[in-house]
Amino acid sequence: MPRIITLTTDFGLTDEYVGVIKGVILTRTPEVAIVDLSHLIERQNIPQAAFLIRSAYRFFPAGTVHLVVVDPGVGSSRKLILLHADDHFFLAPDNGVLGLFLKSKYFQAAYEVQCEQYYLSPVSGTFHGRDILAPVAAELAAGLNPETVGPVIAPLALKKLETADAEIDRGQRVITGAVIGIDHFGNLQTNIIGSSLDDLYGDLKTTVKIKVKDTVITGVQPAYADQGVGEVLAIVGSRGYLEIAVNQGNALQILDSGLGEKILISL
Amino acid sequence: MPRIITLTTDFGLTDEYVGVIKGVILTRTPEVAIVDLSHLIERQNIPQAAFLIRSAYRFFPAGTVHLVVVDPGVGSSRKLILLHADDHFFLAPDNGVLGLFLKSKYFQAAYEVQCEQYYLSPVSGTFHGRDILAPVAAELAAGLNPETVGPVIAPLALKKLETADAEIDRGQRVITGAVIGIDHFGNLQTNIIGSSLDDLYGDLKTTVKIKVKDTVITGVQPAYADQGVGEVLAIVGSRGYLEIAVNQGNALQILDSGLGEKILISL
Amino acid sequence: MPRIITLTTDFGLTDEYVGVIKGVILTRTPEVAIVDLSHLIERQNIPQAAFLIRSAYRFFPAGTVHLVVVDPGVGSSRKLILLHADDHFFLAPDNGVLGLFLKSKYFQAAYEVQCEQYYLSPVSGTFHGRDILAPVAAELAAGLNPETVGPVIAPLALKKLETADAEIDRGQRVITGAVIGIDHFGNLQTNIIGSSLDDLYGDLKTTVKIKVKDTVITGVQPAYADQGVGEVLAIVGSRGYLEIAVNQGNALQILDSGLGEKILISL
Repeated sequence: MPRIITLTTDFGLTDEYVGVIKGVILTRTPEVAIVDLSHLIERQNIPQAAFLIRSAYRFFPAGTVHLVVVDPGVGSSRKLILLHADDHFFLAPDNGVLGLFLKSKYFQAAYEVQCEQYYLSPVSGTFHGRDILAPVAAELAAGLNPETVGPVIAPLALKKLETADAEIDRGQRVITGAVIGIDHFGNLQTNIIGSSLDDLYGDLKTTVKIKVKDTVITGVQPAYADQGVGEVLAIVGSRGYLEIAVNQGNALQILDSGLGEKILISL
Repeated sequence: MPRIITLTTDFGLTDEYVGVIKGVILTRTPEVAIVDLSHLIERQNIPQAAFLIRSAYRFFPAGTVHLVVVDPGVGSSRKLILLHADDHFFLAPDNGVLGLFLKSKYFQAAYEVQCEQYYLSPVSGTFHGRDILAPVAAELAAGLNPETVGPVIAPLALKKLETADAEIDRGQRVITGAVIGIDHFGNLQTNIIGSSLDDLYGDLKTTVKIKVKDTVITGVQPAYADQGVGEVLAIVGSRGYLEIAVNQGNALQILDSGLGEKILISL
Repeated sequence: MPRIITLTTDFGLTDEYVGVIKGVILTRTPEVAIVDLSHLIERQNIPQAAFLIRSAYRFFPAGTVHLVVVDPGVGSSRKLILLHADDHFFLAPDNGVLGLFLKSKYFQAAYEVQCEQYYLSPVSGTFHGRDILAPVAAELAAGLNPETVGPVIAPLALKKLETADAEIDRGQRVITGAVIGIDHFGNLQTNIIGSSLDDLYGDLKTTVKIKVKDTVITGVQPAYADQGVGEVLAIVGSRGYLEIAVNQGNALQILDSGLGEKILISL
């Protein structure tokens, strides 16, 4: 059974850049299925891509190859890496975009991509996604042994992601998080993982105070429809993280909030 | 031969939502072809999705599974349904988005989706498209008997679509319709089906008066190029419905019109 | 092995137009892979589509069928053509959009599409991409002999593209080009082919003067990272053409330039 390759980039949808990556892949491995995750990552926004790929990968089968190309350093000395994590394969520049997979619960191995025999020739100075990562992804999907793409790199030698998960104060029973994304519906996506609320608050999850700017929300709801139309609510969203939403409305506009906004949870 | 699954949503193209639906489908039925119809349905605009899917489905083979996820009531008690109509299968929330297929010329059967053995586990309160409809679509595409997804629902028990087809007064030979969509080119899409003009006016179709705001257009043209560049015209568009267009121009801007605008046709 | 079909259109992503083209293709040739190159060509911008398809096609295998539908003359007497060039197949209206493949280094044969037995029935006056080109593309991908689609047309009888490659004055060693596109990153794409710089200047390529508006750039760089962050540079982009860029910035905004801007290169 052929593997799947997913694509996450900041290339946009107007130019031919995504299409030619698919051409390079299909030329090598015609029977692969290619799935677009997003090509509208904000230009060079590494944390946005990092959270998106961590939310998305687990809905694909083990062995899927995920290509993540947000690459402000293309043509510089930054490395290209293959990360083996949670039985999936991730190809990306070593710029932190895979930083959320470095925890021991995910991490299995990392390699520096150096298998020049598979690259397009010549390799441009501007588009390593097409010239290096796409052909290597195609070879991996066709069954290439990941250990042959290049030398092992220790996880400590990889670039970290500065934006991290929320801070949890177990003594005070306080969580301090932040808005790390806004989705198409205006929902504010946070870095507060849903299961941490169960761990810290248990049944009190339905009565905790969630402070966003001047608004205090009481409790986490199971569904948007548990609040009236137009009312602000907190919910564990489809990514598995806490989100601030408005039932049939746009939380971004109603709260006049945005990326980086602090979220404070307490009893 | 594997079936095709089409996707119509209001999820946008920035987030991973569409991609993870594809991941869920391909995990279950790897050999299926997935086709995007639109993910830029205006947020929660049920009539827009309803007219789009009715225009599009007939260009796919019988047996195609169409997933239509515009779902403002996610997590509430609204049902999810499988509709068998005109030899195609449609999966959607029961909110009217499939309302144009309830006429007897299309309708074959409807079922409430209740086959929990196929759902993702756990089912979230926010994303039934991914957790319920995507796996059921994958099973149907792999050959699942539609009668096994859940109990039969009578068509009268299904939610209707409030926006309906145009009214035809056969005595006065008058049609009263409305603009129900604007396409990428600024063409005004109406709810006046092209064949109704032939039925009502026959050869006089080329001389009827078509009133849009203060503009009166004479006759229906066979092609954009039958009017001069920049001129307003009426034409049966590629959907099979009357459209108000401008040859190589933008009718939306030129007529300063929009959604809901009344269209009056008479001799 | 099934062939690939690529799609380049100005249809946008909101309507069902692209999806139904895929439905028509997959109904005829289910095992084909369809790749989107762009559906966000500016409405009826023939040169933009012409440069995009010439940049993209070579990353696909020989025998790929490329459908290019930017068609302001749909329904008029303009021809539809099949062009065989550089071992690829191109289907498009005869309006210049394939004009960059008419040079002898690419051109192999051209045919007027007249194989009505393959068209959808009835053929609309508004959507020949769906009704004529999509089914013919599907048949070609399934192995139809291109000589059977219709009569041969001489290259001189085909519509030319008015926007051409840059002018090279070998005596003065001056190149006069223009900005013919802006990509998603704000890079200014020119019609100056990268290899022409090597031919004309050799090692002096690193010191030539490149004038854009009031800015003079010195030399062509191998990578964005060869200039400081925020600095303007000239580079042979991933298309193989000279581009004006800003390292981790937006040249369109910083230079306040745009489509049609003159680019002058001299020693």
